[in-house]
Amino acid sequence: MINKSVIVTGAHGFLGRYAARRFAEDGYVVTGVGHGNWERSEFSEFGISSWHSEDVGLELLMKCEVEPSFIVHCSGGASVPFSISDPIQDFQRTVANTAIVLEYIRLHSPKTILVYPSSAAVYGRAATLPISENDPLRPISPYGVHKLLAEQLCKSYAENFRVSVAVVRFFSLYGEGLRKQLLWDACSRFKSGVNEFCGTGLELRDWLHVEDAADLLFLAATHGSTSCPVVNGGSGDGVSVRNVLEMLVGEFGGKSDLDFSGVPRSGDPPGYQADTSTVKSWGWESKVSLREGIQRYAAWFKEDCV
Amino acid sequence: MINKSVIVTGAHGFLGRYAARRFAEDGYVVTGVGHGNWERSEFSEFGISSWHSEDVGLELLMKCEVEPSFIVHCSGGASVPFSISDPIQDFQRTVANTAIVLEYIRLHSPKTILVYPSSAAVYGRAATLPISENDPLRPISPYGVHKLLAEQLCKSYAENFRVSVAVVRFFSLYGEGLRKQLLWDACSRFKSGVNEFCGTGLELRDWLHVEDAADLLFLAATHGSTSCPVVNGGSGDGVSVRNVLEMLVGEFGGKSDLDFSGVPRSGDPPGYQADTSTVKSWGWESKVSLREGIQRYAAWFKEDCV
Repeated sequence: MINKSVIVTGAHGFLGRYAARRFAEDGYVVTGVGHGNWERSEFSEFGISSWHSEDVGLELLMKCEVEPSFIVHCSGGASVPFSISDPIQDFQRTVANTAIVLEYIRLHSPKTILVYPSSAAVYGRAATLPISENDPLRPISPYGVHKLLAEQLCKSYAENFRVSVAVVRFFSLYGEGLRKQLLWDACSRFKSGVNEFCGTGLELRDWLHVEDAADLLFLAATHGSTSCPVVNGGSGDGVSVRNVLEMLVGEFGGKSDLDFSGVPRSGDPPGYQADTSTVKSWGWESKVSLREGIQRYAAWFKEDCV
Repeated sequence: MINKSVIVTGAHGFLGRYAARRFAEDGYVVTGVGHGNWERSEFSEFGISSWHSEDVGLELLMKCEVEPSFIVHCSGGASVPFSISDPIQDFQRTVANTAIVLEYIRLHSPKTILVYPSSAAVYGRAATLPISENDPLRPISPYGVHKLLAEQLCKSYAENFRVSVAVVRFFSLYGEGLRKQLLWDACSRFKSGVNEFCGTGLELRDWLHVEDAADLLFLAATHGSTSCPVVNGGSGDGVSVRNVLEMLVGEFGGKSDLDFSGVPRSGDPPGYQADTSTVKSWGWESKVSLREGIQRYAAWFKEDCV
C-alpha cells in the first residue's frame, strides 16, 4: 500500500483512542480529529501523529492527511440520555457530521474507505435473540434513530456515489478508560459501600472489550466496499447485568449481596445479544474474555480513580 | 380554535403556494417562510399574510407567528437530479431543516402539529402495485433517502418528545405553475414541434393535481398525532407516461405520433401507483380528474409561457 494513513474522528473519545492505537500498531500514520486539549505526549500514547481539536468539517478534513486509506469515523453522539436532553445536538454530531465525512470522500478523496462504528441501538427492542444484521431496525431512543440515519447515509453514498464503507454495529463496549455506564457506576458505588442498583439485574447484554472493538474496526476497514457491509460487533454471548456485577464485585471488592430495584428502567430493552456469524465468516472473534476484561477494568479503576 | 394560524415553509415553492392558499381559504392566518423576492401583491395572492425570505432556523421560526396551530413543512429538496449533483445540500434542505422545525416545536411550540409532505420516492422500486404505506422502504436516489430520513426524524420526535405529526407521501404532483418535469418538458417540446421523449412511455405514475395535494395536507393536519400517521397521497390510478402525453397533445396541440427512445432512464422506477385505502378511510378522494388537470395545465402554459 502506497498511502498507509488513516484519519480517526472522535479520536479523543473512548473507542477513538483504541482505534487510533490499533491502526498505529500496524504502521499507519494516524491523524486524530476531535475535541479536547491534548498534549503531544498524551495523544502520541495512542499512536496519533497529529491532533486537530475542531468540529468535523470539509475544510478541516482537507487540511488533514491527504487522501488517507481510511477514515474511522468514531465521532458522534455517545449517550442515550444526552440524545433525549439535546436531540438536535445529537443529530448534528451523529447524522450531519457523517454527511460531511461522506461528502469529503465523495468530492476530495474517493479512494478512501469509511469505517463507521454504529450501535446495536439501531435494533431497539429485539423480538428474538441473538440479533442478526437482517433483523428489523426499530430504534427506541433518538440516539438509536440517529445512528440508523447515519448508517442510511453511508449506504446511500455507497450506492449512489461509489463510496466504500463498512459499518460495525457495536453492542455493549467497555474497557479501561470508560468513565460512564455500568462498570464505572458500579465501581463508584462499591467504593462507597453501596450495593443498590436500578433495574432488575436480568437485563442481558453482549459485552465487548474495547480492544476487541478496535481490532474489529481494523478488520472491517479491509472489508469496506460499495456494497456497504454491515456487521454486528459483539462477543456473541449474552450475560446479565447481575452476572457482570457479581464478577466485578469479586475483582473489585464490595458487598456481594447485590440489591436491584426490580423496576425495569424505561426505554431499556430487556435483551441484547449479537449473532456474530458474519464477523466469524470474516475469521474474527473476540480475544478478551469477559472475566479478563472485568479484571482489567477493576485494576484500572483502582489505579487511576480511587 | 383560539389560534387559527399556520406557518408554511417552502411557501414560495410549487406545493407550498397551494398549501398556503388552502389554509387561507379556511380562515387561517398564514405566515410564509422560504426563499425568493416576493412582493406583498404576489404572496397575498396565495393567502400569505407575512413573508420571510430566509433559511429555516430556530430564530426565524421564533419570530414568526407565535405557537401556530400547524406548521406545513414544504421546504426541502425537490429534485432527484439535484440530490445527485449536490447531495449535501439536499441533505441540509431536507433532513437538517426538518430536524430544526421539529426542535422548534419541541422547545417552543409543543402544541403545534407538523404536517410533512414526503414522497413516494421513499419506496424506491416497488415489487408490486399499488404501493401501500407498509410496503418496504428502499429509496434509490439521495432525494428519496433524505425524504425517508426526514420521516424517521418526525417519527422519533413523535415517539420520544410527543410532537404531533402527520406525513403524506406524495406521488406525481403536477399542476399550473410547475415549471419542470414531464408536462413542462412536453409542452416546451410540442411548442417547438418536437415529439421525441426519453424512456419507454410505459412508466406508470400516479398523477395528483396540486390542488388535491394541498387539500390532503389540510386534512392531514387534523389527523396529526404522536402516533405520526403516514398516508399515501395519490389518486390511486396508475397512468402511463404515454397516455398522459397523448392527453396533453390533444389539449395542447403538437405531433400526435409520440416517439420514445425505448431506453428506460437509469434510476427511474418502472411503476408507481398509490394504494389509497388509508386516505379513503379519512373520507378523502382526489377531485381534479387527470383530464381536467391536463386541460388546465395546457391552458396555463399557453397563457403564461408561450
